[in-house]
Amino acid sequence: MLKPLLAITMGDPAGVGPETIVGAWTSPRVHRWSRPLVVGHPEIIEAAIRLLGNRLKLVEIDSPEEAEPSPGVIPCLRSGNDSALNVQPGEMCAAAGQAAYDALVLAANLALSGRIDAITTAPLCKQSLHMAGKKYPGHTELLAELCGVPEVAMMLYLAPDKDIRSPAGLGVVHVTLHSALRDVFAQLDENAILAKARLAAEVFGRLLKDRAPRIGVCALNPHGGEGGLFGEEERTIIRPAVERGLAEGLNLVGPLPTDTLMVAARDGHYDAVVAMYHDQGHIALKLLGFHRAVNITLGLPIVRTSVAHGTAFDLAWQGRAQASSMIEAVRVAGLLARQRAGVASDFGEVSDVEQGELTQEAEV
Amino acid sequence: MLKPLLAITMGDPAGVGPETIVGAWTSPRVHRWSRPLVVGHPEIIEAAIRLLGNRLKLVEIDSPEEAEPSPGVIPCLRSGNDSALNVQPGEMCAAAGQAAYDALVLAANLALSGRIDAITTAPLCKQSLHMAGKKYPGHTELLAELCGVPEVAMMLYLAPDKDIRSPAGLGVVHVTLHSALRDVFAQLDENAILAKARLAAEVFGRLLKDRAPRIGVCALNPHGGEGGLFGEEERTIIRPAVERGLAEGLNLVGPLPTDTLMVAARDGHYDAVVAMYHDQGHIALKLLGFHRAVNITLGLPIVRTSVAHGTAFDLAWQGRAQASSMIEAVRVAGLLARQRAGVASDFGEVSDVEQGELTQEAEV
Repeated sequence: MLKPLLAITMGDPAGVGPETIVGAWTSPRVHRWSRPLVVGHPEIIEAAIRLLGNRLKLVEIDSPEEAEPSPGVIPCLRSGNDSALNVQPGEMCAAAGQAAYDALVLAANLALSGRIDAITTAPLCKQSLHMAGKKYPGHTELLAELCGVPEVAMMLYLAPDKDIRSPAGLGVVHVTLHSALRDVFAQLDENAILAKARLAAEVFGRLLKDRAPRIGVCALNPHGGEGGLFGEEERTIIRPAVERGLAEGLNLVGPLPTDTLMVAARDGHYDAVVAMYHDQGHIALKLLGFHRAVNITLGLPIVRTSVAHGTAFDLAWQGRAQASSMIEAVRVAGLLARQRAGVASDFGEVSDVEQGELTQEAEV
Repeated sequence: MLKPLLAITMGDPAGVGPETIVGAWTSPRVHRWSRPLVVGHPEIIEAAIRLLGNRLKLVEIDSPEEAEPSPGVIPCLRSGNDSALNVQPGEMCAAAGQAAYDALVLAANLALSGRIDAITTAPLCKQSLHMAGKKYPGHTELLAELCGVPEVAMMLYLAPDKDIRSPAGLGVVHVTLHSALRDVFAQLDENAILAKARLAAEVFGRLLKDRAPRIGVCALNPHGGEGGLFGEEERTIIRPAVERGLAEGLNLVGPLPTDTLMVAARDGHYDAVVAMYHDQGHIALKLLGFHRAVNITLGLPIVRTSVAHGTAFDLAWQGRAQASSMIEAVRVAGLLARQRAGVASDFGEVSDVEQGELTQEAEV
C-alpha cells in the first residue's frame, strides 16, 4: 500500500503536544494510512516517552527520507535549538513559542518541497508565539503565509462512525468564529459564506469520487427566519450566497433552520455544514464527538490537520492527556494525503475513541 | 398505585392531534403513571380510530370521575359543539380554533377545581385560534390567563435514558425564543434570566427530593465571552443574574460556554439548562432526541405538558403521524402529577421511541 510520509509537529513544549504524540504512537490507527515522523526536539519527545513509560524507542533522523516508523519506533527530525529544554510545563515563554514555530516552519517547508506528504500539528500557544516575536494569530495564518495563499479556512471534521452516517464523515466550516455574537451581523456577507462553501466542497470533492458534496448552509435566525418574521439575513445575505453557489455548480442547500440541519447532517444527508457563528457549529460538534474531532485546514496547497484541542497547560506533563484527537488527526491526514495522490481508501473502522480530558479549544 | 386522572385535550381537529392521541393510546407507557381521558369531540376521536384502524373503543362520559380507561378503551368527555365536524384536514378555520379552545378551557377548569390532576395538550393552530376570535399567541398564554398567573415559561424536557444521564432527565428553558437573533440582545436582562432559573429550579425541586436541582446557565458568546474578548453580556447581565440566584439559594452555575455545558448536561452534570436564545437550546435538544421531547409549562398551579411538535397540517389525517411525543407527554404529565401529590416514582424505563415525522415546532 502506498503510504504517505507524514510529519507531526511537536507543538508548544510546555503543553500536551509531546505526550499526546507519544500516547498516540502505539495506536495501530496512527500507522494505518501513513508513515509518521515527528518534527521537534528529540530530548523533549524522549521526556514524554519517560513520562508515559511506554517503552517507545526514539531514533533521530537527519532527513525525512530516512524515517522507518513503527508502533515501537518514533523517527524524530530535529528542529530548533536547546533553549526549548528550559521550558517549564504549563508556562508561557518565548523559548516555547520559538520551538513550536521552528518545528512548524521546517515541516511546512518539507511539505511544500514535496519531501513529505502531510502535516499534523500538535497545539501551540498563541501568547508564547507572540513572546517569541512571531505575531500570528495561530498556526493557520502562519501556514497560509508560508504557502502564499490568501484564503484559508479551518474545518472541524468528524470521520464516519455509528453516529455520523455520511460516507466521508461530517465537516463544519464557520463563516464567523471567534467574535462576540453581537459582532456576527457585521461580518456576515455573501462572499464570506460562498468562500467557505467553496472550500468545503473542494475537500469533500476529493474525498467523494462519485458525486458532488452536499453542503447544508445554516440559517442565522430561529426557524430559518420564519419567512422574515424572525430576521432578514436569510433573505438578504444567505440565500443570495446560496444562489451564487448553485450557479457555479456547488450542491448547496439552504438557508436551513440549524437545529434540524444538524440532525439531518448527522444522519447522513449532508457532507458538510456552513455555520454562521461559533456556537451554531460547536454545540452540535461537541455533542457528536468533540474528543475525536479533527481540524482540517482548507485552501492550502499541502495537507494539514491538527488536533481540535489546545495546549491544555493545566494538564500538561502529568500523563493525563488523552491522545484520541491526535490519533484521529494523524489518521485523517493520512487519508487526505492518499486521496490527494489519487489513491482510494475507504474510511475504515473508526473504533470508539476514549473521551478525553482536553476540552480547551485549539488555537489553530 | 395512586394514579392521577389526566385529561388529554384534542387540540386542533384539522391537525395531527386526534390521530396522535389514538396512536398513543395502545402504548402501555401512556397508562403507566396515570388514568387518561380525552377532552374533545367524540366523533372526531372516533374518526381518528377509524383512520388508524386499531379497534379501540370510545366511551363517552359525562364527568371525569366516570372515566375507566384501559389500553382498549378511550373515555371521552365532550367539549364544544358539532361545528367542529365540518373542519377540513389540514385547513385553518374558525371552527377548528373554537374546538381546540373549548377543549382546553374545559380541561383547565377541571384541573383548577381539582377534579383532574394533570393536562396534556395536543397541538393547536394559532391562526385558527385567532380566526375564532381568541387572540392568544398560543396555549400557554391562554392557560396563564385561565390560571391567573403572571410568569410562566415553557421547558423542553427529555426524560432520562441511555443518553440523558441525570436521574430526573434534562430540561431546557429559553430566556428568549421566537425572535430574530439580532433582537436577542435587547431582550436579555437579569430579571428574565433569573425568572427562568427559578421556574426550572421549582419543577426539578419537586422531581428531585434529595438535593437541590443543578442549573447550568449558558453564556451568550463563544467561550463564555473569553474574559470579555468576545463580548460583555456575560459580565454585565448573565453573571449578575447568577449571583442573585445564588444569593437566594438556587444552585446555579454559569455563565458557561454553551457547547461544553450541553455535553456536561447530557452526561448528567446538570438537571436543567437556561439558554439565552432559540438555537442554543434547540440544536442540542434536537440532536439529543427531539422526537421524544415534551413541553412542560412552568409556573402554573396545575400540571400541564404538551407535545413538542405542532399541528403538522401537511401530515394530518393521513395516518402517518408518529405518536412518540404524545406518549412521552402523557407519561411525563403522570409522573409530574404523582410527584406533586407527594408520591415518589422512579422514572421507569424509557424505551426507544420511534423517530417521528413531526418536525414542525409546537405553538405552545
